[in-house]
Amino acid sequence: MTISPFAPKNFPALPPIAGFDMAVAKAGIRYKGRTDLWVLRGAPGTQIAGVFTKSSMPGAPVTWSRRALLAPDDRKSARLIVVNSGNANVFTGEAGDKAAQLTADVAQRVYGADSAAVILASTGVIGEQLDVAKIVRAMPDMAANMSDDLWEESARAIMTTDTYAKGVSVTTQIGGVDVTINGIAKGSGMIAPDMATMLVFIATDANISQAVLQAMLAGFNELTFNAITVDSDCSTSDMVILAASGAADHPIISDPQHPALDDFKTALLKVMLNLSHQVIKDGEGATKFISVNVSGALNDDSAKAVAMSIANSPLVKTAISGEDANWGRIVMAIGKSGEPADPNKLTVSLGPLVIARRGQPVKSYKETDGAAYMKRDNLEINVDLGLGTGVFTAWTCDLTHRYIDINADYRS
Amino acid sequence: MTISPFAPKNFPALPPIAGFDMAVAKAGIRYKGRTDLWVLRGAPGTQIAGVFTKSSMPGAPVTWSRRALLAPDDRKSARLIVVNSGNANVFTGEAGDKAAQLTADVAQRVYGADSAAVILASTGVIGEQLDVAKIVRAMPDMAANMSDDLWEESARAIMTTDTYAKGVSVTTQIGGVDVTINGIAKGSGMIAPDMATMLVFIATDANISQAVLQAMLAGFNELTFNAITVDSDCSTSDMVILAASGAADHPIISDPQHPALDDFKTALLKVMLNLSHQVIKDGEGATKFISVNVSGALNDDSAKAVAMSIANSPLVKTAISGEDANWGRIVMAIGKSGEPADPNKLTVSLGPLVIARRGQPVKSYKETDGAAYMKRDNLEINVDLGLGTGVFTAWTCDLTHRYIDINADYRS
Repeated sequence: MTISPFAPKNFPALPPIAGFDMAVAKAGIRYKGRTDLWVLRGAPGTQIAGVFTKSSMPGAPVTWSRRALLAPDDRKSARLIVVNSGNANVFTGEAGDKAAQLTADVAQRVYGADSAAVILASTGVIGEQLDVAKIVRAMPDMAANMSDDLWEESARAIMTTDTYAKGVSVTTQIGGVDVTINGIAKGSGMIAPDMATMLVFIATDANISQAVLQAMLAGFNELTFNAITVDSDCSTSDMVILAASGAADHPIISDPQHPALDDFKTALLKVMLNLSHQVIKDGEGATKFISVNVSGALNDDSAKAVAMSIANSPLVKTAISGEDANWGRIVMAIGKSGEPADPNKLTVSLGPLVIARRGQPVKSYKETDGAAYMKRDNLEINVDLGLGTGVFTAWTCDLTHRYIDINADYRS
Repeated sequence: MTISPFAPKNFPALPPIAGFDMAVAKAGIRYKGRTDLWVLRGAPGTQIAGVFTKSSMPGAPVTWSRRALLAPDDRKSARLIVVNSGNANVFTGEAGDKAAQLTADVAQRVYGADSAAVILASTGVIGEQLDVAKIVRAMPDMAANMSDDLWEESARAIMTTDTYAKGVSVTTQIGGVDVTINGIAKGSGMIAPDMATMLVFIATDANISQAVLQAMLAGFNELTFNAITVDSDCSTSDMVILAASGAADHPIISDPQHPALDDFKTALLKVMLNLSHQVIKDGEGATKFISVNVSGALNDDSAKAVAMSIANSPLVKTAISGEDANWGRIVMAIGKSGEPADPNKLTVSLGPLVIARRGQPVKSYKETDGAAYMKRDNLEINVDLGLGTGVFTAWTCDLTHRYIDINADYRS
């Protein structure tokens, strides 16, 4: 397997977070010789927020976890998150629902948690039955070996076609008290807005009500995980989970506008941006990380539609893979977006190089400058529609031979 | 250049059509040593219908031709269609508009036509000025060498990344009188619904009013050229033109429901289906021709959205390129379409092989049968949503290494 050129040398340091411990196991669900099962336990009282795929074909774990988040939380039971890789438990009919129930039941029995307090996530092949017996067999040993310092191992256990484990940690303060946010993510292909085959788990010791957690997660999700695309394909299994143990020694925050939350919001957005960018940098076959900045749209929604049309265009993405400053394809992608746009008001730049201003090619732009710029790993496409004040930034990667290799030649 | 495996051995026989003659030239607009300019002349009285790209960034020729179709037709002047390849005259500002005007002016002068009677089309690179002087220089010689028997040469002159020339001819009757329909097309990449870098010119000697021609063309376009996708990218330059000289000896048809038109409608749809399929079979890098048949949707629009979601999915298309019967990706693409769908009512088949029926994997389905089926050149994906009576068929090709080669390594 070719490792992404953006892979960091080392997994970042993720410290223990009060109120959480975890375990990993080699359950042998599909992969041999590697971990594929992860349990994260939050202390009683842990509050959990989540956002999920908008697919109309969600996997059984997505349906299960949506329901679990709605269940009343009596704060007496530990909260568990159980994640397997290798099998997505999607399009598996009633047997798939039973597999989800059985996984929650065994977690309840082994860990002494309410089964309604269990969040499930699965990622991997679609349409094959999940062999729950393997999970059942692995779990007692996991419960006997819980640790608060296994974040890297956790990030590895949930990988599928990922070429590196993804994690980030940020420390901030609420009311003068230090709080930490750790996040891990998996995702590499089938990544598109409205989530992706992307699983993200964020844990913090902050003491914040579920409603406030949910509002922050859903809001920032639009600017981060819903603003990235590898291949325009949206998965059946995506979720982003935010769990807060409340172990930090500050009064509970129940008002989303509470000023003590300002720094935490900045830190959470930073964690989510970082992880979403890591997913793109490990996009299947990616050699370029591309920011698509759209401004001057009639409104932000229109800016997002234009940015996504560019970020999803196979012709834009193949040109970038070939280091061809083929900006005509950017114009094409703006045109196909269906959003209001006027060729005579359009300004297009590659990084600092203005290529066309208000519809007219800029004479000082030289193709050789464009060609030199395209050799960079990190590229910016800047589009000003010249119509209004709407802005949006989307992130994507290039479309390369290796994307075809990965997806034509193997079944992940 | 690798020729499409679907390329026919020979260009089909396209007979002369009364009321039309044509010429081609090597104007040297971009390509060396090949024809790149085509003029089709319709006798005075020729009626022309057209449908155009929905891009908000249309090329100057698209804007020009839309206007030309609106101009009153006094039937005294010949009608001209002037097409160049090598430069799309898109995003070229005022100079581009002037280039279009100048091309029409010189056609008017050389051929004695009203410039308002000239239809223009251009295809090729975006954002570079079209050197009209080359067209001006070539045209007198073309006017002196018009012929009614140059359909294959015409199809070749409008090619860009096409690997073979595309044409079809069908003969039918109106009121007992023989009429002929000839069509030529170019298109290979940047092909998506709402047209594509696709130029299609259809000529007939039938005597039909402009309004009826326009209604038939627009209606059938939804079932043919707007039902195909190579890469989901939609061009700035597309058009489908239908010209009728009226030379056939039958009374003019001015009623779209006239029973004498029934056979002609069938023949026209056949021509448009054939050409749209040829475009897909020459899709950049295509090795598979895929029909996506969706039934059981709430309505036809919903069926189309589901069919297009499957046909545009890079993960579905790469799996097919790898001959992997990865039907989980079909389920994913249905799920991401945003259309009403219920996993428990969904039936998915590959050709005759039913893989899942009403949400349950079919036990008699064997992966080896699926693998054998995927080796075919012509594949059918059949999806029954089990919700209603809506149906739609879309056509696409696979996504291969050669698509990346063509689009990453060359600027067309």
